[in-house]
Amino acid sequence: MSKEVAPWASPIARSRIAEVAAGLTDLSPEGVSETVRGALRDHARKFDAEGIVLYAGTNLMSPAAREVADSLVSSRPSMGWPGEKYQSGLDHLDTLEVLAPTLVARLLGARFAEVRSHSATMANLAVYTALTEPGDTIAVLPERAGGHTSHHAVGAPGIRGLRVVDLPYDADAFDVDLDALPEFLEREQPRLVVIGASLLLFPHNIAAIAELVEDTPLLYDASHMAGLVAAGRFQRPLAEGADILTFSTYKSFGGPPGGVIATDDAALAERLSTAVFPGLTANYDAGRLAPLAVTAAEIMADEGAYADRCIANARILAAVLREEGFTVAGAARGFTDSHHVAVDVGDGRAAMDRLADAGIYLSAIGLPWQAPGEPDRGLRIGTQEVTRRGFGEDELRRIAAMMADVLLRDADPATVRKAAVRLRTSL
Amino acid sequence: MSKEVAPWASPIARSRIAEVAAGLTDLSPEGVSETVRGALRDHARKFDAEGIVLYAGTNLMSPAAREVADSLVSSRPSMGWPGEKYQSGLDHLDTLEVLAPTLVARLLGARFAEVRSHSATMANLAVYTALTEPGDTIAVLPERAGGHTSHHAVGAPGIRGLRVVDLPYDADAFDVDLDALPEFLEREQPRLVVIGASLLLFPHNIAAIAELVEDTPLLYDASHMAGLVAAGRFQRPLAEGADILTFSTYKSFGGPPGGVIATDDAALAERLSTAVFPGLTANYDAGRLAPLAVTAAEIMADEGAYADRCIANARILAAVLREEGFTVAGAARGFTDSHHVAVDVGDGRAAMDRLADAGIYLSAIGLPWQAPGEPDRGLRIGTQEVTRRGFGEDELRRIAAMMADVLLRDADPATVRKAAVRLRTSL
Repeated sequence: MSKEVAPWASPIARSRIAEVAAGLTDLSPEGVSETVRGALRDHARKFDAEGIVLYAGTNLMSPAAREVADSLVSSRPSMGWPGEKYQSGLDHLDTLEVLAPTLVARLLGARFAEVRSHSATMANLAVYTALTEPGDTIAVLPERAGGHTSHHAVGAPGIRGLRVVDLPYDADAFDVDLDALPEFLEREQPRLVVIGASLLLFPHNIAAIAELVEDTPLLYDASHMAGLVAAGRFQRPLAEGADILTFSTYKSFGGPPGGVIATDDAALAERLSTAVFPGLTANYDAGRLAPLAVTAAEIMADEGAYADRCIANARILAAVLREEGFTVAGAARGFTDSHHVAVDVGDGRAAMDRLADAGIYLSAIGLPWQAPGEPDRGLRIGTQEVTRRGFGEDELRRIAAMMADVLLRDADPATVRKAAVRLRTSL
Repeated sequence: MSKEVAPWASPIARSRIAEVAAGLTDLSPEGVSETVRGALRDHARKFDAEGIVLYAGTNLMSPAAREVADSLVSSRPSMGWPGEKYQSGLDHLDTLEVLAPTLVARLLGARFAEVRSHSATMANLAVYTALTEPGDTIAVLPERAGGHTSHHAVGAPGIRGLRVVDLPYDADAFDVDLDALPEFLEREQPRLVVIGASLLLFPHNIAAIAELVEDTPLLYDASHMAGLVAAGRFQRPLAEGADILTFSTYKSFGGPPGGVIATDDAALAERLSTAVFPGLTANYDAGRLAPLAVTAAEIMADEGAYADRCIANARILAAVLREEGFTVAGAARGFTDSHHVAVDVGDGRAAMDRLADAGIYLSAIGLPWQAPGEPDRGLRIGTQEVTRRGFGEDELRRIAAMMADVLLRDADPATVRKAAVRLRTSL
């Protein structure tokens, strides 16, 4: 069976696919349903019920948001603005289609929010479509500085046919190299500059970058920072000089999956919105706008309390990890101003796998000081999920100790996993 | 509040947005939750519980598929093939990621199925990305022949920067004009030819088209026909000569939202798959693959029974609509070979709105014989949802009579709606 699935994938992936395929024998509806239910049950136990999820790009929706996630609405098409929908009978959904962008825009202090993208990757592609022509150059953060797939040629810019160049980066400042930027801009003439990263410990100096890029549009991808930015923490990209803000709604923002594009410029908003629909979507998921609206209202009322707890937890975790003997990024600046923590472990992937055996789930990531082409040296940690689950200083100290047991003190991951499950299930 | 939402939209849309916005006053979390719950409740009553949904592009998932739609899995990221996922801890989801494409490929009689696209629009954009360069020409069906937004320059081809030309069309044959095709191909030199439409009463003559386009890749967009094609009805696009099949999984296919790309060519499959990930998606929705796998297994075991009922119901409805006095498309050929029926009502949008007042929901559509630029003359009907709800000849006769009451006999839609709700709630 496995020959049909990605025979071009890597040997590791092909081996895993073959292993999984070997277990799939009963293709009757009952057999498939049982297999699927079993996989979901096993996943829910391992990952959701027993796992300590420090993966920086995920979250849990609030109870109120989950309550309004309506799978029937999400599994039916909806196309066009209220009053001129392609389908009839959907009038009551108009409420969601007005409420969600209104709340999200207010929350961000932006004039306009386009909320219909499937994902932040699609949101970024909509920006590329609105602001560039195929063959144009865009300038983005290097991968080792957290530049996302959807900023690089292998991702969405390649769909648009763009040339992508890496911005000069100052690893010590964790930011764009402002000294090198003018000459770079003069040489490369990008039509768009993209900042905001998948690992962001400290705010970008947006004001300085915006001043140097002058009339070139500046996109800030807040996919990871959106929950903090929306809460008025970390930084305010539009107020500080970015022209456009994009983000994912299911990471620190804590809502359903999806992408948002925000701007203060009406003419630009129309172009961006038109790139989303009818450019990148015909029907979109109106059901998703229900939990998005509830999530936005909750962030607004929370007045930054959750964001503050996420940041405080990240700083505690970083400090304890350093006490335990890890090389933690940003030590000289207090480790982090966000919910992200980065640890230099030399071989990020191996450390990630070993921690997974101990029931602690996160991801490897490149670090700004690694050599071009070197495998990811870092572990990226996000506190947004464990914070929502109620973890505080005591729990984070225990997590740091477990990580040290597994990675620095050669403890058996299976033994550590028992402690991790106990910690996870105690809250 | 409404000033923030699409001030560039049409006067009709702006008016409706303002009307909705005027009712949104309490932006507290509790107020927003109550507003959202109310909208979903009202929508569920009007559309799902009381509405007769003849909209051709929607469906209901089966009970077994709905049972495995896991919103928690769908609201968390997943990226990369089994064995090399970016995130750790997701191993049990590997089962879904092998099972879903395997079942879908088998069902279609295709070697490869790529199932990770958010939508058929994204699937089509992936095909454009894999097979064209910006500036290339593609040839597609005209809008009045059901050519979809995602085939035209306003949609996905515009994202890729493509030039789009309309294929010559023979309105009498409901198909590409085979006589005019060779000269057209010689003149336009398309890099890709796209067939398959949003309204498809009769199969395309794929073999003849494939022979004429020679080495130019032929894409068949089966978004609407997928449920029939997968059941071995209507036509077998890949076997008949198409190189690539794309489709939407939540229309006649009856699964969750999403897009599929299928092909028999391994080298092409790799390029298409790479365009989906990492081109158009970073994280994708692994949760969606659970109901997709169950749906595919059910279609396989059903051996065409549901597809046959959909087609039989469409033919009955078409015949009765004609008896009632409507101008029904395709009368000389038995009206339809699919679950679609098309009626020429002169002003499709006005008829659609009037039927909506009577609780019958569908959409307007262009018809092949209308003049370029003329507003949509047609009503498009699909029987896939009412068939799943158990409607048969008796119910379809009553629906046709109600449509005639409203559109031909000047009955009060509000009165007819009472009968429509009774009919809907009787099953």
